[in-house]
Amino acid sequence: MKKLILASTSTIHGGEYLDYLKPALITHFEGVKRLIFIPFARPGGLSHDLYTARVRKFFRELNIEVLGLHEFRDPVKAIAQAEGVFTGGGNTFLLVEQLYQHKVMAILRDRLYENMPYLGTSAGSNIAGISMQNTNDMPIVYPPSFKTLGAMPFNINAHYLDPDPNSTHMGETRETRIKEFHQFNNIPVVGLREGSWIEAHRRTYTLRGPHSARIFEAGKIPYELEAGSEITVS
Amino acid sequence: MKKLILASTSTIHGGEYLDYLKPALITHFEGVKRLIFIPFARPGGLSHDLYTARVRKFFRELNIEVLGLHEFRDPVKAIAQAEGVFTGGGNTFLLVEQLYQHKVMAILRDRLYENMPYLGTSAGSNIAGISMQNTNDMPIVYPPSFKTLGAMPFNINAHYLDPDPNSTHMGETRETRIKEFHQFNNIPVVGLREGSWIEAHRRTYTLRGPHSARIFEAGKIPYELEAGSEITVS
Repeated sequence: MKKLILASTSTIHGGEYLDYLKPALITHFEGVKRLIFIPFARPGGLSHDLYTARVRKFFRELNIEVLGLHEFRDPVKAIAQAEGVFTGGGNTFLLVEQLYQHKVMAILRDRLYENMPYLGTSAGSNIAGISMQNTNDMPIVYPPSFKTLGAMPFNINAHYLDPDPNSTHMGETRETRIKEFHQFNNIPVVGLREGSWIEAHRRTYTLRGPHSARIFEAGKIPYELEAGSEITVS
Repeated sequence: MKKLILASTSTIHGGEYLDYLKPALITHFEGVKRLIFIPFARPGGLSHDLYTARVRKFFRELNIEVLGLHEFRDPVKAIAQAEGVFTGGGNTFLLVEQLYQHKVMAILRDRLYENMPYLGTSAGSNIAGISMQNTNDMPIVYPPSFKTLGAMPFNINAHYLDPDPNSTHMGETRETRIKEFHQFNNIPVVGLREGSWIEAHRRTYTLRGPHSARIFEAGKIPYELEAGSEITVS
């Protein structure tokens, strides 16, 4: 029993923060009066307060009050009682380290399985997978584990980028990095392009948005999954 | 007392493996008959044997024999007795995890401080820094620590890329990622462009190759350091 929206990015090129997701979020958070925002990933080093203020501004249009998890004395209790949770993007290593430090990983997992509506963008989508091992982020802090919420039977690679045939850069492509991952792990990976999101209802995972997604399974040739399709890897 | 060449990349666009470094390597490894190659980073999942064969082929032209560290029963003894060491690129998380697993991190650090000639490319350069925290790689395995050799008072960001002003991609730029790092760490970072390398002699670090490097220090505006200059951050 899960009710998740997991987006590749919070903002699409030329758009405003969360704007492209607005119609989906109105439905997703129907009946929710107060949302808890997890600002721990701190994009560009943004403070918890400023990050929460940005989110609060957007959700005001939806008549939803936003409280930052950092504002609570007891973050475990806050998650336990939350009507809905949104985890924003930034640095996944920092986010995971903070979730463990504040001991909210387990309670957040419980709440996802209790059907509490959850929104993740970028790093916040990444942690819904089995592990954070397909993040693109820099390891700026050392988390106690790479295991994450396990709310679905696969991992997400957010901001998925196709190899650029004109590139002269010799660093690894995203596809090569995921291939290296599959030398040591058999968790399927969904390469989620910017503008795409995954909508999870109960045990069904549907690809939403305008783009296809690239699916990577250990020992298989990667393939495209069309928008609107169900993700059936496990 | 150190004698290091730390390159951003093994191969420049349109070039052959290590070819652009050949003149520097002839001087660097003068007198070395046998080189130990550390293939643990396995680029694209390449096997230890195939990776070592690629390196062997290049060093044959320099009349230097190459042995893979994976061919030794006692890798600690192999490093202790090595005339020179080369660590190749690939995945930094895997490389660091393997160096700890085979217990060669400490002996390799000792040998670097004993003036043994060392070559690193990409991940192999990354580990010469204080920590591996400025890698671009995906966390495909969980190493016991992010601490690395500490052969110099800064970290390297290999394959450094300038922000692309025409990009529509919303993922973080390299500069943003390093800025996030400096929210939590005060280790200086050298953004080393492809084709550049650092030459270390004793306690002097010189930027070599055709490009300037971008220097990031906590709390300072990033700046360019011209090719041929000494790196004086600490």
